[in-house]
Amino acid sequence: MATLDDIAKMAGVSATTVSRVINNYGSLSEKTKTKVFAAMKELNYQPNSLARSLKGKKTQLIGVILPGVGNPFFGQMVEEIENQLFNKDFRIILCNAGNDAKKERAYLRMLIANRVDGIIAGSHNLNIEEYQKADLPIISFDRYLSENIPIVSSDNYQGGQLAAQALLASGSKKLQIITGRNRPNSPTNDRLNGFKNIIKQHDLQLDLTEIDFSATPNIKSLKIKELLAKKTIDGIFCTDDLTSLLVMRQAKNLNISIPNDLRLVGYDGTNFIQDYHPELTTIMQPISDIVTMMIDLLLKRIDDPECQLEKNYTLPVKLIAGTSTI
Amino acid sequence: MATLDDIAKMAGVSATTVSRVINNYGSLSEKTKTKVFAAMKELNYQPNSLARSLKGKKTQLIGVILPGVGNPFFGQMVEEIENQLFNKDFRIILCNAGNDAKKERAYLRMLIANRVDGIIAGSHNLNIEEYQKADLPIISFDRYLSENIPIVSSDNYQGGQLAAQALLASGSKKLQIITGRNRPNSPTNDRLNGFKNIIKQHDLQLDLTEIDFSATPNIKSLKIKELLAKKTIDGIFCTDDLTSLLVMRQAKNLNISIPNDLRLVGYDGTNFIQDYHPELTTIMQPISDIVTMMIDLLLKRIDDPECQLEKNYTLPVKLIAGTSTI
Repeated sequence: MATLDDIAKMAGVSATTVSRVINNYGSLSEKTKTKVFAAMKELNYQPNSLARSLKGKKTQLIGVILPGVGNPFFGQMVEEIENQLFNKDFRIILCNAGNDAKKERAYLRMLIANRVDGIIAGSHNLNIEEYQKADLPIISFDRYLSENIPIVSSDNYQGGQLAAQALLASGSKKLQIITGRNRPNSPTNDRLNGFKNIIKQHDLQLDLTEIDFSATPNIKSLKIKELLAKKTIDGIFCTDDLTSLLVMRQAKNLNISIPNDLRLVGYDGTNFIQDYHPELTTIMQPISDIVTMMIDLLLKRIDDPECQLEKNYTLPVKLIAGTSTI
Repeated sequence: MATLDDIAKMAGVSATTVSRVINNYGSLSEKTKTKVFAAMKELNYQPNSLARSLKGKKTQLIGVILPGVGNPFFGQMVEEIENQLFNKDFRIILCNAGNDAKKERAYLRMLIANRVDGIIAGSHNLNIEEYQKADLPIISFDRYLSENIPIVSSDNYQGGQLAAQALLASGSKKLQIITGRNRPNSPTNDRLNGFKNIIKQHDLQLDLTEIDFSATPNIKSLKIKELLAKKTIDGIFCTDDLTSLLVMRQAKNLNISIPNDLRLVGYDGTNFIQDYHPELTTIMQPISDIVTMMIDLLLKRIDDPECQLEKNYTLPVKLIAGTSTI
């Protein structure tokens, strides 16, 4: 890796002069500039991205703010974002915002101070007003952040419908939805609405249990055990796959057979679930397509901050049939 | 967020002058500098980390190169790295190197060009010579990278021993190890050595099957099915938990009961496995301690590039007992 000193030596100037040429500071003769540029080329010197940024050019850095890569869904999404951006010569600064709004705010300020070229954001924290003030390109995954930030998501309403149809087709009549705490603007609302839309055409029992997304698996399991122990339900739709895994475990503990006594549909359909839990019927979000779309829109905004984008971009989901409904 | 223009207006100077003050370029009067610094303070301006970097100060950016956050082990590790570094005012640039040595090399060059303050690296690619040339602080997770890069790991030998003891205690006599392709300097060698060290004291059957870490779960499953179908083994040690999940599935398909017919011990013990597969007996790596140690060493090297560090830092592992061996 060539350093400023290497270039200075080859060009026969001082390191300070090289630095000034790179940063375009101070008065320099054309002859000096030509010598320095020739030496940079000869030594295959990569113009430093930070220096370019100070000249108003791009840093090739993208901030990525999501709940946390410990969750296989967001792990797969971040891997996809990083891979696709790498091929376009961008790097990512990763923030796991968890359910910590204060941390998310701090990151936003830091990312702006770091002059990232843009941000992909999809945390679960609400009302982060910094998104409205942020004067740089931002694309959201599946969450409303501010009026002018486009939202890319998969079709939550269609997903809810597919889940309901799978449970109906499997003969379930006493239905239960297990979902995160429902909040305004949450995309899971649409999963519920799509589900209910199908169910209301039939004369069936439907109950809803809300469990906070941030509750620990042990606490979630307790509530699920309570539900299952009543043995009054024969079909469950969980609005995420990990909760479905807890349902499978509790059902086994209670000697409830899936799919004989109980049918189960999850949501997300990550590679992890398809590889390690193929028995689970689930609704697959097209993570790769979602990421391609987010990056495409983000790069458009980076190239032209004034470009007009839609408010919502919605991609289709798929039912992946496992033995939990057959 | 205050801009250069805001500061310029308040200080009564041009934006170029503000930029020169921040970057310490050109000749400026003390009076001008004082005015600009006062305006920066008044507007709570965060000195841009890129600008500071050009002055030879830190960027507060750390590069993190690991196989991929789609794997729950590395997902949890990256979440831990990011959380701990956030509390120390650092951000991370994430690289999922997968089994792509070319990508890893490109990242190393880019991270250096981006002037990150240091790197945490633990990919599975071998012989990346750029690590030897890289002139910045680097700490490795569980892999030999170069002579002067310290390795933080958990005690693989002890882990292998604990796994063997658990299988012996459960009465297994026909033992099988399933591990990744064994390569020079791979830490899984020590897991095998520790395992064999315990077994050799008994007169027991021991076979070893190597399956490439990068093989897909479907391909791994085929090989596992072949192994189990022979029904000649009653105890398996997998050197990672995800492979254990595949063993559990194939055993179920073949009506082999765990733990009655077959005992099973995995390795890693992530939060994910403990939460969603508590039935699996496994060796838990202390991810949080590993990360604390890596960050501590990295910050020492950043503060003092000449500081002497050990070659290896090895943290103890724990057996987490599930029903797969009881």
